[in-house]
Amino acid sequence: MTENCNGLRVLPLGGLEQIGMNITAFEYGDSIIIVDCGSAFPDDDMLGVDLVIPDTSYLEENLEKVKGIFITHGHEDHIGALPYVLQKIPVTVYGTKLTMAIIEGKLEERPAPKTAKRKIVKYGQVIAAGDFRVEYIRVNHSIVDSAALAIHTPVGTIIHTGDFKIDYTPVFGEPVDLARFAELGKKGVLAMLCDSTNIFREGFTKSEQWVGKTFETMFSENQDRRIIVSTFASNVSRVQQIIDTAARYHKKVVVDGRSMVNIISAAVELGYIKVPENCLIPIEELNRYPKEQTVLITTGSQGETMASLSRMAANIHRKVTIEPGDTIIFSSTPIPGNEKAVSRVMNDLAQLGAKVLFQDTHVSGHACREEIKLLYALVKPKFAVPVHGEFRHRQEHAAMLEELGKAKDEIFVLHSGDVLELTEDTAEVIGRVPVGSLMVDGLGIGDVGNIVLRDRQTLAQHGIIIAVVVLEQGTNQLISGPEVISRGFVYIRDNEELVEEVRSVVLESVLSCQDRRITDWNRIRNTIRDDLNDFLWKKMKRCPVILPVIMEA
Amino acid sequence: MTENCNGLRVLPLGGLEQIGMNITAFEYGDSIIIVDCGSAFPDDDMLGVDLVIPDTSYLEENLEKVKGIFITHGHEDHIGALPYVLQKIPVTVYGTKLTMAIIEGKLEERPAPKTAKRKIVKYGQVIAAGDFRVEYIRVNHSIVDSAALAIHTPVGTIIHTGDFKIDYTPVFGEPVDLARFAELGKKGVLAMLCDSTNIFREGFTKSEQWVGKTFETMFSENQDRRIIVSTFASNVSRVQQIIDTAARYHKKVVVDGRSMVNIISAAVELGYIKVPENCLIPIEELNRYPKEQTVLITTGSQGETMASLSRMAANIHRKVTIEPGDTIIFSSTPIPGNEKAVSRVMNDLAQLGAKVLFQDTHVSGHACREEIKLLYALVKPKFAVPVHGEFRHRQEHAAMLEELGKAKDEIFVLHSGDVLELTEDTAEVIGRVPVGSLMVDGLGIGDVGNIVLRDRQTLAQHGIIIAVVVLEQGTNQLISGPEVISRGFVYIRDNEELVEEVRSVVLESVLSCQDRRITDWNRIRNTIRDDLNDFLWKKMKRCPVILPVIMEA
Repeated sequence: MTENCNGLRVLPLGGLEQIGMNITAFEYGDSIIIVDCGSAFPDDDMLGVDLVIPDTSYLEENLEKVKGIFITHGHEDHIGALPYVLQKIPVTVYGTKLTMAIIEGKLEERPAPKTAKRKIVKYGQVIAAGDFRVEYIRVNHSIVDSAALAIHTPVGTIIHTGDFKIDYTPVFGEPVDLARFAELGKKGVLAMLCDSTNIFREGFTKSEQWVGKTFETMFSENQDRRIIVSTFASNVSRVQQIIDTAARYHKKVVVDGRSMVNIISAAVELGYIKVPENCLIPIEELNRYPKEQTVLITTGSQGETMASLSRMAANIHRKVTIEPGDTIIFSSTPIPGNEKAVSRVMNDLAQLGAKVLFQDTHVSGHACREEIKLLYALVKPKFAVPVHGEFRHRQEHAAMLEELGKAKDEIFVLHSGDVLELTEDTAEVIGRVPVGSLMVDGLGIGDVGNIVLRDRQTLAQHGIIIAVVVLEQGTNQLISGPEVISRGFVYIRDNEELVEEVRSVVLESVLSCQDRRITDWNRIRNTIRDDLNDFLWKKMKRCPVILPVIMEA
Repeated sequence: MTENCNGLRVLPLGGLEQIGMNITAFEYGDSIIIVDCGSAFPDDDMLGVDLVIPDTSYLEENLEKVKGIFITHGHEDHIGALPYVLQKIPVTVYGTKLTMAIIEGKLEERPAPKTAKRKIVKYGQVIAAGDFRVEYIRVNHSIVDSAALAIHTPVGTIIHTGDFKIDYTPVFGEPVDLARFAELGKKGVLAMLCDSTNIFREGFTKSEQWVGKTFETMFSENQDRRIIVSTFASNVSRVQQIIDTAARYHKKVVVDGRSMVNIISAAVELGYIKVPENCLIPIEELNRYPKEQTVLITTGSQGETMASLSRMAANIHRKVTIEPGDTIIFSSTPIPGNEKAVSRVMNDLAQLGAKVLFQDTHVSGHACREEIKLLYALVKPKFAVPVHGEFRHRQEHAAMLEELGKAKDEIFVLHSGDVLELTEDTAEVIGRVPVGSLMVDGLGIGDVGNIVLRDRQTLAQHGIIIAVVVLEQGTNQLISGPEVISRGFVYIRDNEELVEEVRSVVLESVLSCQDRRITDWNRIRNTIRDDLNDFLWKKMKRCPVILPVIMEA
């Protein structure tokens, strides 16, 4: 795609077909910059997969052009693939202070090559990168230090909003820099890539401070109880409000859960969280205080099996035991797919006698419909590229833009891999680059593909039956077996008769092959497989994986 | 538990720890009646399981006492286990007309024994069953012909609400019979078992007719397009409203999806749905009409893989192809756990160019908080047993009752298996009966247990490696192998080197056993397993199932 590049190319390499895995490249002449480098959670059918990262082969092939990676904020769907991608694209990473602190934490486990430097950027700062100048603009989001980017290019200015909301009363720092968006809009913006997450929600997203009011009420009504609040580790302002409310009620605060401890330590150190003196105590000192004088802030609000709160719910937390009277606040809403896990943790906690609160305890970090309209009114981009949302969100985003009077041919609902070429006054999808998802399983990256996943799905459904026979070299006469072994099929001890029947079926298959003078092992294996398949479907309406093994002796 | 039965025993045999699988027995002297007999969806970790049904061994042991099964309404979580349970407890089943039609449909696939008669009951009717008299009371719900039960017993009247809501303007039939609840309340009700599903929702559930207004708007705004509406097959009133709206806009209606066709046919035949003349057409005639003059009513609103709408979305429906301009209405909200599947279907449809609508298209079938309070105000039961909800719903239900002034010891948040004994003025949990879930997998009932499930989970995570060796009889010398086969582990063709390494590890294990004169096959197998486990964890941080097989020749 790099031949005859006349304009600016926008290359979304992930994040458009799913939530997560956000990564977009911008290419002009001999310069490429990358915006964000996120991972995604595996789909339900990606059994055993830990993480999904984008295929960056296009960037690897054009490595000499890549001038830097610009991160908008420190959420996993924007930084999660960095430790992997930097191994192949070892360039400088730019981001705001807290964002970079979180990235450094991730890189401790999987260190980046030396050429992958990290540079901290301030709001308003402009970084020159090849033909681009990248400007960081303050936005509000559910993690502090979030930024939109104004990418100044030879053909015009592009705005990438990243994830954003408009919070006139944020807990930390200033509201989104609407004035700068307006100023850029006045000067002329060629295109805007804008967050679509909450496009289906009418009105405005509430301020983070609104949650603080709920905490105030809950703490006031539960003064005589221990309070445990679970939230996203990265939501520094939420944590600040929990600490502030706890301090007002003279309670000591314990932070628990690895990611919570890591991020809060970093945030405190960098000045993003202010802790009143003597308010935080280590978990080891928890029992020195009366229960009702303590507050715990934990991970696990999404029902993650090994997170702090889930371990408490399952009664396997080594330092905290849930007791009747404990009040537990879930300060989050379940991410789609986590609903049942969250419910399970809530029920387990309730069964231990705890009071579980979850209403009015969360606000979204993304702009609702009216906020998105407001941003368009300020920025007035010539072209619009809805991003950060499933297809249907971006389609609705486009429909909203048409309602605002934008022409159909000025709106681009792209697919990952599409190449959108922009000049000073035109925009056109001119082709595609290779894109895809690499599945990370343990230390393996990309060695689990569709065939392996299909096998895992079949194994998960009905298990496996292995039938082993030993045939005599040359004569193909059966000299040992069939041995039948199964896993995940039926409980063998209670079903010995069935196992015996399966053995008979295999024996007959082998003998019938001998009778028919079939000596080709593949044909023998297929005969065993077909016969056993038929037998099991007729008898039990099940189809486990059947694996005939022939050994020669 | 049947010795010394002095009072009435309430035995919830399912449905209290999860949504679904509702079944409650009432026992007095020599009489037992059963209320509802539902199935549940398998949990996420019940891999390969089709359905979960209650363990009814307590009822089987007391078969001679069982006087009948009384069904409140025709949803799967109230009738789904009937085809299985009737095999073991072949007694008369009672239910309203539509409920029974749906049950008959289910019993066609798995016929019930002759003694399991079916009897249709009308609202207001009272059925004598041993020491009990069971009265059917009209309630509203998301399926017509739903009933609450007043169970008149020697110690007093028990009300079981079943699933209910209060709809003053139902689409079919009359509002809930509040007057009868009030009358019973006046006379005195000993206990009420009441639906908790929507206890966390403030206010009142909207009337079913409210959805009709949304349909009106949507049909009006999409007159020039084909409209496809997906909803629950059993929501007969929803279907009625779709048909009515279609008729008003002079559109022909096609019904698609097996369960949708079955239930609508039954409902039309029994008079629960009124179809304007010439409005319904068979799917084969769809192409005879201009697209914009047609409406399809389909299954698949929950994203179920093989349902009609999902097949359209995946472009594998044999008779309907989604085209740009089609308008698709999801008239339901996702059941917890189905969110991602529903989103996927919506995205697939949107990518085919369809307009997807889902807002204001559904109302719940369950009473919200104020409706539940209203029912208590009318019935004034001495004792309250919150049912139909997870533990946390029932706990909240109890908290609400305390707010209403009910004493703690008059409220029973039970567990499945608890035996609640009631006399005319006391209530006490006096013990437990065996309860549990039987997993249905294909034709097998209960042959998949925890060991098999654990195997399936491990297989699903990282697959399986099978290592086969043939040892010489007597000497235990290796004469063939090791052969290494895997499924769901890595893609073998791309990883031949790894497979070779695995083979070497196995070979070394076997040889080391020979060197150490280990002849016990179990020890040899364990050595192979341990060595391979170590190797794979160190190399890849994965732990597939390892299955060493030793053959003798």
